[in-house]
Amino acid sequence: MSNKIFFTPGPAQLFYTFEEHLKKAIFQDIPSISHRSSEFIKVMQGTIEALTDLLELPEGYQVYFLNSANEAWDRIIQNLVSNQSHHFVNGSFSKKFYDFALAHDKQSTATIINDGEAYSSWEIPEGTELIGVTKNETSVGHSFLEKELNQLRISNPDTLIALDIVSAAPSLPIDFNNVDTAYFSVQKAFGLPAGLGVWIANERCHEVANQRASKTSLGSYRTLPNLKKFGDKDQTPETPNMLFIYLLGKIAEDILRAGTKRMRNDTVYKATILNQAIENHPLINHFVESKEHRSKTTIVAKSDHSSRIIENFKKKGLILGSGYGKHKENHIRIANFPTHSKESVEMLCDLLEKVE
Amino acid sequence: MSNKIFFTPGPAQLFYTFEEHLKKAIFQDIPSISHRSSEFIKVMQGTIEALTDLLELPEGYQVYFLNSANEAWDRIIQNLVSNQSHHFVNGSFSKKFYDFALAHDKQSTATIINDGEAYSSWEIPEGTELIGVTKNETSVGHSFLEKELNQLRISNPDTLIALDIVSAAPSLPIDFNNVDTAYFSVQKAFGLPAGLGVWIANERCHEVANQRASKTSLGSYRTLPNLKKFGDKDQTPETPNMLFIYLLGKIAEDILRAGTKRMRNDTVYKATILNQAIENHPLINHFVESKEHRSKTTIVAKSDHSSRIIENFKKKGLILGSGYGKHKENHIRIANFPTHSKESVEMLCDLLEKVE
Repeated sequence: MSNKIFFTPGPAQLFYTFEEHLKKAIFQDIPSISHRSSEFIKVMQGTIEALTDLLELPEGYQVYFLNSANEAWDRIIQNLVSNQSHHFVNGSFSKKFYDFALAHDKQSTATIINDGEAYSSWEIPEGTELIGVTKNETSVGHSFLEKELNQLRISNPDTLIALDIVSAAPSLPIDFNNVDTAYFSVQKAFGLPAGLGVWIANERCHEVANQRASKTSLGSYRTLPNLKKFGDKDQTPETPNMLFIYLLGKIAEDILRAGTKRMRNDTVYKATILNQAIENHPLINHFVESKEHRSKTTIVAKSDHSSRIIENFKKKGLILGSGYGKHKENHIRIANFPTHSKESVEMLCDLLEKVE
Repeated sequence: MSNKIFFTPGPAQLFYTFEEHLKKAIFQDIPSISHRSSEFIKVMQGTIEALTDLLELPEGYQVYFLNSANEAWDRIIQNLVSNQSHHFVNGSFSKKFYDFALAHDKQSTATIINDGEAYSSWEIPEGTELIGVTKNETSVGHSFLEKELNQLRISNPDTLIALDIVSAAPSLPIDFNNVDTAYFSVQKAFGLPAGLGVWIANERCHEVANQRASKTSLGSYRTLPNLKKFGDKDQTPETPNMLFIYLLGKIAEDILRAGTKRMRNDTVYKATILNQAIENHPLINHFVESKEHRSKTTIVAKSDHSSRIIENFKKKGLILGSGYGKHKENHIRIANFPTHSKESVEMLCDLLEKVE
């Protein structure tokens, strides 16, 4: 890696042990061994075990490998939705999941509010089979609260809940008992290159998919029944991105070894000083108005001087994220991921203070 | 990499310049930069240009990035087939494409013959929209001939032809004028880790997809119209596997620099001495009976002593492929890819001669 530090929310800074594991993976021929070999099955087992521990997945939650969160949207719609899903939309990524459902010709609905706003209406149309919720709306820095998720679950006990945990996992604690399926891509908080997605599904999802499979096509190689058939042998239907699966497992193990609680405490500390720096600064303001809904992993500020501030930091080798989509010119996004040391965030805050 | 040499047909031996480019990619922060940045757009342009040159693609053939050949099967069916495709099947991979079409509820048909046999019947059912052909059936080492492909084209001028070029590209010359769409995964002859697929489509494919798009769902993010929309800006609909796209481009450039013709001549030379070694050996025989249909990149031999021979070579650090699927115990598969030096194949042949 260069001497730059990427505070962009994805693609993001590589995890600080990434290069070391990459070297070992190449030396061990991980990309050349057979994906059906006992050697690679051990890699699969290791990664799934580390993720299950790190995310504190309850019994019966399976971990599968896809290529991205985009693919997860596709697979969830194909496998779990016959007619209609309902989506909570307050940013570009929650909207994309809704758009995917419509692209698949579903009669889906959405609660669409302004970007970054907190939800106040929780009504779900009758007949909804699956509710799409975004834990951390990476585009604008809104966080869905655990108590909101819990309330959604209590009010809709028979509806599947799909949680987007991109840029949330593993930094934010999530009670998976409120969730039936979840997914993330690894180029955010896990500090890996893009090209691997993780899809988590519980037994209810498998039951729904199995029932639907007798009536309709769920797709081909990455249907839930097929993923489970291979997954039960710690394998995948096709040759997967073996190198990244290996690296994801090693990084998850590193985080576990250093302590999940510590990593989460650090996340809170770094978010706190970043929020403070934004509050104290005359030229920038928080974009998300509701304090408790502000993301701890993707800090989003609005400013008329965004481009200039980003450019200023770039000269110092600190790469901040610009706004997403229509907010490109007016937002600054700062990632707060496990790979960002407290020292690097403290430095960033100090420099921010000096920006005029 | 270790000191082993992988002659397995995929996952395979990494390309000999792979590590050097990997180091440079990490140093240049390729996995951390934005996939919408001008820096990454240059990477995309470089890779597409190198592939276009290396594969000698005619005007109007677009190059898109997927995650695997499996995904290409999915996308071809979703985008280009309304009711029926027809598949030439003489091994596991050609069969899988057919299976994918059926999984998508298409009324597809197939010419199914024994594994590794040469085709003799070329009839295509009326109403066929797309013909699926496998240039190199990696599972059994059968090669579809250029003259057969040309004849298929002449007899079916109005039907799309999809060519599987997994483990064929870039080693075998292919006349893309006989092909409308083609695809490969990079963990075979290009010597990269698994996790990236390349999908090539000509204008006819785009026309068909555009026409179908007004009537039916082609999927979501990786429909041909959407890939083209982003592709026209040298971008992708989602964050792609940026690292592997970079590496693929660098390896393609290396092959071009050393000379495509030379690489292909070497492929023929290495295939010739491997075939000779099989012919001369009392314990092993060619699996594909028709000499001209024997693959030059995936040499497949049958033997009652396969496991013992593979084990024998393994002790010397030379990893040969076992048979695929039902042939697991009785076949030996030897990859002959651009990364395999003439010297390494000569050594392999010498050792084979000594195996009793």
